[in-house]
Amino acid sequence: VTEPDAAPTTPGSPGELAAAIRDGDRRALARGITLVESRRDDHRRQAEALLDEVLPATGGAARIGISGPPGSGKSTFIEALGLEVVDRGHHVAVLAVDPSSTRSGGSILGDKTRMVDLGREPRAFIRPSPSGGTLGGVARRTREAMLLCEAAGFGVVLVETVGVGQSEVAVADLVDLFCVLVSPGAGDELQGIKRGIMELADLLVVNKADGDLAAAAQRAQADYEHALHLMRPRWQAAPARVLTCSALHRSGIDEVWAAMTGFRDAIVASGELTEHRRRQALAWLWTEVQDGLVDRLRADPHVAGRLPQLEADVAEGRRSVASAARDLLDQFT
Amino acid sequence: VTEPDAAPTTPGSPGELAAAIRDGDRRALARGITLVESRRDDHRRQAEALLDEVLPATGGAARIGISGPPGSGKSTFIEALGLEVVDRGHHVAVLAVDPSSTRSGGSILGDKTRMVDLGREPRAFIRPSPSGGTLGGVARRTREAMLLCEAAGFGVVLVETVGVGQSEVAVADLVDLFCVLVSPGAGDELQGIKRGIMELADLLVVNKADGDLAAAAQRAQADYEHALHLMRPRWQAAPARVLTCSALHRSGIDEVWAAMTGFRDAIVASGELTEHRRRQALAWLWTEVQDGLVDRLRADPHVAGRLPQLEADVAEGRRSVASAARDLLDQFT
Repeated sequence: VTEPDAAPTTPGSPGELAAAIRDGDRRALARGITLVESRRDDHRRQAEALLDEVLPATGGAARIGISGPPGSGKSTFIEALGLEVVDRGHHVAVLAVDPSSTRSGGSILGDKTRMVDLGREPRAFIRPSPSGGTLGGVARRTREAMLLCEAAGFGVVLVETVGVGQSEVAVADLVDLFCVLVSPGAGDELQGIKRGIMELADLLVVNKADGDLAAAAQRAQADYEHALHLMRPRWQAAPARVLTCSALHRSGIDEVWAAMTGFRDAIVASGELTEHRRRQALAWLWTEVQDGLVDRLRADPHVAGRLPQLEADVAEGRRSVASAARDLLDQFT
Repeated sequence: VTEPDAAPTTPGSPGELAAAIRDGDRRALARGITLVESRRDDHRRQAEALLDEVLPATGGAARIGISGPPGSGKSTFIEALGLEVVDRGHHVAVLAVDPSSTRSGGSILGDKTRMVDLGREPRAFIRPSPSGGTLGGVARRTREAMLLCEAAGFGVVLVETVGVGQSEVAVADLVDLFCVLVSPGAGDELQGIKRGIMELADLLVVNKADGDLAAAAQRAQADYEHALHLMRPRWQAAPARVLTCSALHRSGIDEVWAAMTGFRDAIVASGELTEHRRRQALAWLWTEVQDGLVDRLRADPHVAGRLPQLEADVAEGRRSVASAARDLLDQFT
């Protein structure tokens, strides 16, 4: 069902494409995503028209971010979770945010040998990370792809992120619920998770709770619970939780899904989800305005000519930030 | 020594003011800070000229951020630490970032009954938080005040922040070392510190380690050490540490200062401080450029007229973020 190579053509008007997406036409959805991923200016304008068209049909999915360091078994976990969700009758879309996908040559979810079982499911849709560009650009295109998936009727959207760098924060800003996958350490030596990730986690899942690692996973669960206990909860209605599972044996996945739905029910009932999404929408607006302004500034030939020297001067302390910033702004406006 | 009410006049040229500041003239320093705090456009240009003038004399201080939730004894701790630093022959400046200072009516460090002993020290300089404006604006003015203090020969700059909201992140972006103060909890119930704060801490100090709370402070220290252990360190050369002290009895403060200097020595030797400050300078540049662009956009009359409706439409899901952002950008450029 993965269609990363769909041609970036525009089949009719944005209105026609929107109608086909809302009818559940998979090919139309893939084309729509390719359109929002394009950086050609005419495509961008069509994408904006498309997003306006589908807008009334968006917002209905449970938006779930999934992160975890390399080696935590993330794709096995996502496949197991996706199959669990499909078994319960939902349609699941799997997207990804990986700003390194151009440099590293292979984007996450781009390897077609991954998630073979989930990829065969007619109710699942898997799309690799858009390649190239800044984290902000990749996150935006993924957010827009998420909206198109919602318009196409997907009730669950899983957004995967690489377990390094700033991409977790970007994904946490896209979703309702952020889930962090970890491995049990050997003995008492827990796997150090990145500072700043634990604070984002609504759900921490210790994977590989099977065989020799079962006992270590239990200890890790207790340790992470203790650490989370030291932090103020992100949500009034739903404290962060730590669970264990074995994605390989597909055990404990039902409890993970039950925790996810319970979490969502709680923040829907408390009104926190509505408020969270309003804040996200306004934050996205200002992020796009800021990024758009900076893009236009960087594209300005006067600015581009002066930028390398100015940046070097500021980094080396030869020029104050304040006057360098004004210099750039005055070149532009 | 606090001079928050210095007149925002300009004594001669920025060059003369810079020379007086570098000579250690306290009144000139206070005037310079008032100048960088002013939002009048002509003052802003003079401030930029002043910052360019003093630039070669900046960068020499140990820049230390201090945060902690209300009730953790922050001002008592800062006074004790400041006196310790002064006793060792250093000049210490105490600045603050409190974006709520206008609304709440009283800024941190604004209360002149606080830090009475430190305020009497000729080698100490205390300046309340600039009032009004966004967090970004307050942080910028504090950063520039820090540069002026460095030019005036202060070897240690302590930047206090309120222990709530996003101001800790802003302060962590200003300083070399970020110190978080906490209280020992009663029994096993540790005081929940905000998610995202622990990740910023290079040094976590459990205050009130005296009398009835001494044992609880020891337990809290062990618990926080354990929690920090689960996180990847921010610096290669200097792992985060947890100490206890009693700011009230001024005990343990010498160990805190020793840890701070040890930390600084380590990241100077490893080259991490140089790299950290280069990254901070470039980040500040782009923050100022972004903020300046957004300020100019918001000030645009076409934009200002459309903004309330556009924001409401985006928040309520009546308009897509993408097209609303383009609408604003097109109004502006």
